[in-house]
Amino acid sequence: MAPREVSSIEVGQTYLELHHQLHRHVDQVMSAAGLSLARAKVLMRLSEGGPMNQAKLAGILGFAPRSVTDTVDALERDGLVTRTEDERDRRARIVSVTPAGSDALEAALLVRSKVMDEIFGSLPAADRAVLVDLLRTVKTNFPSGENSCAQ
Amino acid sequence: MAPREVSSIEVGQTYLELHHQLHRHVDQVMSAAGLSLARAKVLMRLSEGGPMNQAKLAGILGFAPRSVTDTVDALERDGLVTRTEDERDRRARIVSVTPAGSDALEAALLVRSKVMDEIFGSLPAADRAVLVDLLRTVKTNFPSGENSCAQ
Repeated sequence: MAPREVSSIEVGQTYLELHHQLHRHVDQVMSAAGLSLARAKVLMRLSEGGPMNQAKLAGILGFAPRSVTDTVDALERDGLVTRTEDERDRRARIVSVTPAGSDALEAALLVRSKVMDEIFGSLPAADRAVLVDLLRTVKTNFPSGENSCAQ
Repeated sequence: MAPREVSSIEVGQTYLELHHQLHRHVDQVMSAAGLSLARAKVLMRLSEGGPMNQAKLAGILGFAPRSVTDTVDALERDGLVTRTEDERDRRARIVSVTPAGSDALEAALLVRSKVMDEIFGSLPAADRAVLVDLLRTVKTNFPSGENSCAQ
């Protein structure tokens, strides 16, 4: 069977469209379960990287430093993070996940897994195997410099 | 050939990992060309939706209203958007893309296309056709309610 001619732009566009749809759906389901994707991402980065100041947190998330303030404020109000003084820089505050924050993140990740399962589970097993192989190939062929630029 | 057993969670995880890698790389390349992905997204939403106040803009982007302030401030400083008074709500300001903003967005989207081309162009044409078909199948099978919830 001769394959239809598909440009890499078309693949990229389809990939991004699916991500947009996925992102919105996951956010809706997670928000309904109590933790928006934006808040879950902040908790995730803090869980992975340990306690850190807001400037570093914003950097990892790719936002301007002040842009994470609202999210961190909301998480603090809900008791999911705490802020303590940074001994090395008195103007900065160190943000840490609380035990309640870890529980909320775990629950949110479970919800996300269920949504992903529902979405990619719509493909037959053979197609899932092909899709994961193609995605891994793209990941492996990624332009060089990607990892060396990572923080 | 019997396909390897791949869970839908594994496909979802790989999909998200690739997106994370892609997002970081596109942001680096676009930032180096003058417009970060965060700024480009704001310009994109404004170009699509026309002039709007910051609350609506934040809603479309999925952020808290105050969270877009930094980005809109920066875009305004660079002459890429303007803010004018909202006649229906004197506390609100309407954000519009300037001609310089449209040019900057067009240049940024071109850079993004080139990056996507480089990344997905690493696959042979036959694989691209298979990948795009699988992604479209996942999009088509998307859980119902997705579109009805869209703003």
